[in-house]
Order: sequence, then C-alpha cells, then structure tokens
Amino acid sequence: MYNIALDIGGTKILGVLFDKDNNIVEKTKKKTKSKEGKEVVWEQIKKVIDMLVEKAGGIENINAIGAGVPGIINMKEGEVVFSPNLPWKNYKLKEIIEEEYSIKAKIGNDVNVGILGEWKFGAGRGKENIIGIFWGTGIGGGLIINNQLYEGKIGAAGEIGHICVMPDGPYCGCGARGCLESLASKTAMTNYIDAQIERGRKSILKELLESSNGVLKSDHIKQGIEKKDELTVEVIEKAAKYMGAGTASLINILNPEMIIFGGGVMESMGDILLPKIIEYARENAMPGILESCKFQVAELGDDSGIYGALTIALSGE
Amino acid sequence: MYNIALDIGGTKILGVLFDKDNNIVEKTKKKTKSKEGKEVVWEQIKKVIDMLVEKAGGIENINAIGAGVPGIINMKEGEVVFSPNLPWKNYKLKEIIEEEYSIKAKIGNDVNVGILGEWKFGAGRGKENIIGIFWGTGIGGGLIINNQLYEGKIGAAGEIGHICVMPDGPYCGCGARGCLESLASKTAMTNYIDAQIERGRKSILKELLESSNGVLKSDHIKQGIEKKDELTVEVIEKAAKYMGAGTASLINILNPEMIIFGGGVMESMGDILLPKIIEYARENAMPGILESCKFQVAELGDDSGIYGALTIALSGE
Repeated sequence: MYNIALDIGGTKILGVLFDKDNNIVEKTKKKTKSKEGKEVVWEQIKKVIDMLVEKAGGIENINAIGAGVPGIINMKEGEVVFSPNLPWKNYKLKEIIEEEYSIKAKIGNDVNVGILGEWKFGAGRGKENIIGIFWGTGIGGGLIINNQLYEGKIGAAGEIGHICVMPDGPYCGCGARGCLESLASKTAMTNYIDAQIERGRKSILKELLESSNGVLKSDHIKQGIEKKDELTVEVIEKAAKYMGAGTASLINILNPEMIIFGGGVMESMGDILLPKIIEYARENAMPGILESCKFQVAELGDDSGIYGALTIALSGE
Repeated sequence: MYNIALDIGGTKILGVLFDKDNNIVEKTKKKTKSKEGKEVVWEQIKKVIDMLVEKAGGIENINAIGAGVPGIINMKEGEVVFSPNLPWKNYKLKEIIEEEYSIKAKIGNDVNVGILGEWKFGAGRGKENIIGIFWGTGIGGGLIINNQLYEGKIGAAGEIGHICVMPDGPYCGCGARGCLESLASKTAMTNYIDAQIERGRKSILKELLESSNGVLKSDHIKQGIEKKDELTVEVIEKAAKYMGAGTASLINILNPEMIIFGGGVMESMGDILLPKIIEYARENAMPGILESCKFQVAELGDDSGIYGALTIALSGE
C-alpha cells in the first residue's frame, strides 16, 4: 500500500507518493492559486492527488492521505478553522478529501506536522518528549509529549513564538508585547537592521540588503560576521539571546529529551546560531534539567512537512 | 481497604488515614527532626505510619502508602534524589517503606503531588490538561497532561518559578537571571519592600513588618491596599504583572484547560491577586487560547499534598 502526503502552502501544493517502506516514489507540485477562491484551490489539490493516485495504479492501492496546512487546524475534526494564506474558514478539508476519494484522510497544522515528521523520520527518532521550534519569518513550534503530538485544549499548543521574554517589550503581531517572535524572528531582525541603517548606522548590511530588495539572507549574516560588522554581530547576539531565554523557559517547564530547531533561519544560519542559543540557554536553564536535554538542528529541512504528513497518514483514525 | 497519605516536610510529617471512600478517618503529626539524621527521620515516619496502621486494624487493611516529599524525586524509582530540607540523598524511600511494611508505596515531589491532589479531589476535577502553580516563599508547579502527571525526562518538569520573564533581570537562587521566582515570590516581594524602606521610602509596611519580625503577611498587604499605600500597591502590581506574563507564556505553550493557583501567597491574597493576574495574562496570551483556559484558586489549601499523596497511593504500581 502507498500513502499520499501533502504540504499545502499559500503559494504551492507539494504532493508526495510514498511506498509501503516509506520511500518516495513520486513528487509533484502545483500552484495553490489561493487568491482564486476555495473551489480553484480544491481543483489544484485534486490535480496533485489524482496524479499521485495514477502513479500508484489506482485509489485501491492508497492507504491514506495526510496533509499539513498553515493556520489553526482542528485535527480531531479535520477542519481548517482559519488559515491566513488560504481562502478557508471552518473548511472541513478531511471530510472533503474522504468523500471525494473514499479513503482515510488526516490534516494538521503545518508546524505541528513538521515536528511530527522530525520525530518519526528525522532528528527526533526514538525520543518520547520533544520540543520543535521552527524559526523563520515567524517562530512556531510543536510539542511531542509521551510519544504523541500534544495539541492542548483547542489544538493551539506549541505557540512558542509567543512566549513572553520581555514584559513591556515591542508589540508583536499577536497584540501582546515582548513575544519571542517580536524580538527574534527573521522579520524582527530585518526590521531592526532597517531601523538602525535608517538612523545612519554604518554596516555592510546596507549594501547587501539593497542588492536583495531588502530580503535578509543567510549569506549577508555570514559576510557580516566574517567581517566583524558590528550591527550584524549585535543582531545575531540579540536573536540568540532571546531564543536562548525562551528555550531555557521551555526546558524548565517541560524537561524535554530534545529540542529540535528548524525553519529557514536555522537551516541557513544554524551553524552560527545553535552554539549561541545553547550558551544563552545554559545561563538560564536549571543545571540538572539542561543536561538531560539534547539540542539538534532539524534533519529533514523542507521535507519535514511532507514526512509529517506521511506520519499522520500512517497514524490512521 | 484503607490508604495512608504522608506529607513529609522539613519540619513536620503529616499522616492521614483514608477509608475506601476517600474519607479522612485519622490525622496525625510528628516532628521530622531532620537535623538528627536519616535514621531518626525514618523512626519519625514509622511512628506516623504505625499509628495509622493501628487505627486501620492492621497492615492487612491498608492498600498502599503514598508520600509527598520536597526536592528532586525520581517517581519511577521511588527515590529521593535530593531534598534541600531533609537529610536524604539518593534515598530509596519507596523501597524502604515497602520492605518495612510489605505493601505498595509511592512517592512524589510535594508540589507535583499537590497538583495531583487538586486534579483528583480539588479545583481540577474532570479536567484533562492542567497547570498548577504554587506561589509561596518560592514558586513551584506541576503539569497534568492527558490525565496524568507529566514528569519530563528526569522528573523535573513543571519548574514554573524558573520561567525567564526578564533577561538580565535579578539573579535567582538557581543561578539564572530574571526567573519568575526572583521577581514575584514572597521572598522577592519581601526583599523589594525591605530595600525600598532601607532607602527611606515611606510605607505603612515598615511598621507592620517590624511588628512581625520581618515576615510579610497577607494582612499587611490587605491593610496597605486598603490605605492605598504606594509601596504596597507597587509590590502587588509588579508581582501580578510578572506572574501574568509567565502565565501567558504557559498558556501559549501548553493551551491548558485550567490553571490552578495555590500556595501561601494565593491562599492569603488570592482575592486581590487573581483578577490582576488574569488581566496581565490577557495582555500577553493569544486571544483564542486564553479564552479556552479557566483560572482557579486551589480548593484544598494545605490538604492538597495529603490528597495528592492519596492520589498516588490509589494509582498503584
């Protein structure tokens, strides 16, 4: 039997066909066309699924379909409660897939699904208790507790970007102040650099950012650090410090076996950031608890979502 | 069948005999005599147990013994790894009780056991996911996740007093900076008041503290608030603000059904503090997640530990 894993994003839909040994048989991709409304998006999803079903030799050879979706997802009901980048509100995606194809489907929040992928097929294999932190333009997370995804009362557990690390700190997109995301996300880093340059501060980041239309790239940071650019060093130290403080709180609260860091920022700058995060976490976490926790960079990169979608497809229900 | 519940503290040992309907049949108390060494402490524990066994009409009428102990406890092994107020290090208390009495025993950290008591017999009855915060001279906590105590990798989960709410904040007893405990515990409040008075600040707390040998009492706070004493109001607002920020982080991470606040500070000042904590938590927690969380003051007071010890006795193993 095969399984189909979908990673449904705001711009593209990635679909993968896995064989019974969880090997990738086929990958396919379509534009989401999210601005064209939910019917069009559903047609796009069907194109991806249909192509994979054909490759599998028919729907009778498919065990289940799993899908990761950004936004607030009610996993039990299989409902997309709200998704900022997709034209869905209270959208019963699980039911829609199941009715169309007459097989089991399961959906989950993309970040939660990503940490499930890392737990089952990546850096967290064999661990019972894991915290996953996805660090990119925002900061998300997911918790594996006692060998299962912990969802909390309404499926919203793992909002690690919204740990308060500075009461009265800068306003965050969520409306609160001093959230980790408002201080350490790639967006926060870029905003800080822009503001400092605007104020006339000298930095090689000025030219570098101009050359990339204002998009902060890992290569900029690497060049800045190599050349001991003061602003670059400051930005990285600050981000690592707040992430370290947040990580220390998580360690003291949850005493996890492992923390896995993924997302764009870690993928591109993990070698610079991880040692600093550990150093700052060490300053704040309780000694005995800290030592029982391993720090890892995610192994699956962009594929964590696809492997997570496979994980929920395999989990059945 | 009866059960015996023990609350073993640094100064006294409380023992309670419960009948099959979990009603209290007998309570007894002995001094711990912890300064006289572990043999003497064990003799004291035995006196408490023996008295309750006699009341039950013999050991054959006892199902199990449960005990809450301050310090780092390995619940699975039944070992007191370390206890700051008891003469025990790597002390296999469970085994010692079981060998002496030939019945099942179970031990746990006093705060963890307290939240188990509140979950099974107190404010948290019927809830699946609870965070317990015990706010006294220090700040401790415990987590109920999916209907069981979540202990983490080495049994240290729930160190809620050591959430970092202020990077570069004051040093905490644990060696880190800006822990919730270092900013909001009763000890922190008292230190702040002392320092302000020392600096010549006028407050009715000066006389009140002198009259109680420097021990901050709930009545002082109540008088201070009634008389709109500036320092009192400031201390309470600050403590509630940091607790609110820590609580918001916990809500965003764990999306719990309920947060139960216990401990001396909440018992005596809960009516003043709880509405303020909720207000500050509301500023920082994510809206949807916040609304799914109930805030409760612990119901069992000093008895939460005893009911928790009963809970672990009943849980067997």
